[in-house]
Amino acid sequence: VTVLVCDLGGTNCRLALADPALDRASVLRLANDGFAAFPALLGEYLRRKGRDRVRRVVVALAAPVSGDRVRLTNRDWHIDKAEVAAATGASEVSFINDFEALGHALERPDILRHAPLQSPRAPLANAPRLVLGAGTGFNCALWHPGGVVCCEAGHTGFAAETAFDRALADHLAARHGRCSTERVLSGSGILEIYRVACALAGQGPGLSAGRDVVRAGLDGSDPAAATACREFARILGRTAGDLALLFLARGGVFLSGGATRAVAPLLSGPGNPFLAAFSAKGRMTASMAEYPVHLLGDDDAALHGCVNWAKRSAIARQS
Amino acid sequence: VTVLVCDLGGTNCRLALADPALDRASVLRLANDGFAAFPALLGEYLRRKGRDRVRRVVVALAAPVSGDRVRLTNRDWHIDKAEVAAATGASEVSFINDFEALGHALERPDILRHAPLQSPRAPLANAPRLVLGAGTGFNCALWHPGGVVCCEAGHTGFAAETAFDRALADHLAARHGRCSTERVLSGSGILEIYRVACALAGQGPGLSAGRDVVRAGLDGSDPAAATACREFARILGRTAGDLALLFLARGGVFLSGGATRAVAPLLSGPGNPFLAAFSAKGRMTASMAEYPVHLLGDDDAALHGCVNWAKRSAIARQS
Repeated sequence: VTVLVCDLGGTNCRLALADPALDRASVLRLANDGFAAFPALLGEYLRRKGRDRVRRVVVALAAPVSGDRVRLTNRDWHIDKAEVAAATGASEVSFINDFEALGHALERPDILRHAPLQSPRAPLANAPRLVLGAGTGFNCALWHPGGVVCCEAGHTGFAAETAFDRALADHLAARHGRCSTERVLSGSGILEIYRVACALAGQGPGLSAGRDVVRAGLDGSDPAAATACREFARILGRTAGDLALLFLARGGVFLSGGATRAVAPLLSGPGNPFLAAFSAKGRMTASMAEYPVHLLGDDDAALHGCVNWAKRSAIARQS
Repeated sequence: VTVLVCDLGGTNCRLALADPALDRASVLRLANDGFAAFPALLGEYLRRKGRDRVRRVVVALAAPVSGDRVRLTNRDWHIDKAEVAAATGASEVSFINDFEALGHALERPDILRHAPLQSPRAPLANAPRLVLGAGTGFNCALWHPGGVVCCEAGHTGFAAETAFDRALADHLAARHGRCSTERVLSGSGILEIYRVACALAGQGPGLSAGRDVVRAGLDGSDPAAATACREFARILGRTAGDLALLFLARGGVFLSGGATRAVAPLLSGPGNPFLAAFSAKGRMTASMAEYPVHLLGDDDAALHGCVNWAKRSAIARQS
């Protein structure tokens, strides 16, 4: 059975065919802007691959998934199962959350592209593996031998520890009534961290987009932006450490997400704020060196996850 | 195969026989103080039940479990597999963490004694179920159809939100270098919360034990102790809400632990601080009513969990 797998974000869609393994040569990325709606994008992919139809479609979505119709985060598209079936000829259409897909991808970390940030001497092969990341929002998912645990990590309360954290939490709670983790750990969070850094430095914020803060922070041209990037990496490290501990993810912590990758230079190397905060866990500090930490590449991980998910759900139906 | 299951805490040990289901008539609680070491306690139980030996022993321990010898938290006992085998004639001895046992008990919540704190109209039967609790420390475990996820929730960073939280976090970080969740949510945490309540009220702390704070707080005889109990219940509620969200535990949140049960009057009823904080999750507030919340009885849950664990591990070996 040929499965069309899609990793649909707010800006781009990555697509591939699997039968049953992922056909790497079939991977294609299409910009959503070129299409009025998702079915047209699917039609274009099939046309380019010279296919009339597929039997099954699995779409990983950056959105809460329930029911047959899902509104995409960050783009005014409604993704509808009947419309996807009509555009592809598929008799079966499934939607899964993007982090659920990444969780299923961790079944085979060896085939994913990732860079090591921390490598313990004795990794535990079959221990739980955690993927977490900051992008539009923040979330995580856990793989363990019995399956994948889906989470809503972004809506938990932000754990403010330092004086900077508290100023940040006050700033965000004043705007939103409450400061959740993803108000801080997201693309928009970087901009808010920058605004707080400017306020603490007694200066007005000269930048107004998260990507400008990252650029000016990493090239050293703006001290407040540099502070914001380091604080973001520090808070990401502390949160990743808390989640690693919470889930006992001795099989590995895998970082994903656009905002995470944007600050990649601050996640490794001497004196990086990420790993220092990841490990600063009081009595548990020594044990934090036992967690492998990797930065996932921005590539086919979610597609591999869709393929693994399709296999698992087919097996579950047969048994 | 007869299995001897034990729920061993710092003060008492609860024991029972299972073959394969738990024999409720066999349940007995023995005070650790009456014995020099754990094997003597096991011998006394078998003697009272008129048994020479059992084939298998499963012990749930309030301690990190690894290897063949474990030091019990809160009592200077080393629990050793070879010694347990010698005392019981068992050919197989297993140690599991007490929260792992509670997680396995959630496979059958219907046979556990528990009181509802919040009951949604449409509970999800097969959704993940979370057990969490404050006792000597704080921890949680997740049951889902694929298995049980073991956690180290107590060592995550304490999420300070209110001015009281921040005073508490400062107080505990000054003592321990860092404020973890279980510094607050534990029996000793109640006493620390009381000390902060006294300091904020400009009075000296008249009480010096957590249980005295709970008694004086619940009977209304001490305003600072009453504040401490309400703050403890509020922080427990907020933390339980964060963990419910994080794990999407729509199958139910089950509260356990001695410190949790000590403040039971503040976990339900009009204006209780626990459920108010459980639900106060910004954009997610309405969705928090969809989580069933229960208070587990202090009884045989961990024993049932040991039985379920023994069944699962026997099945895993056969396949």
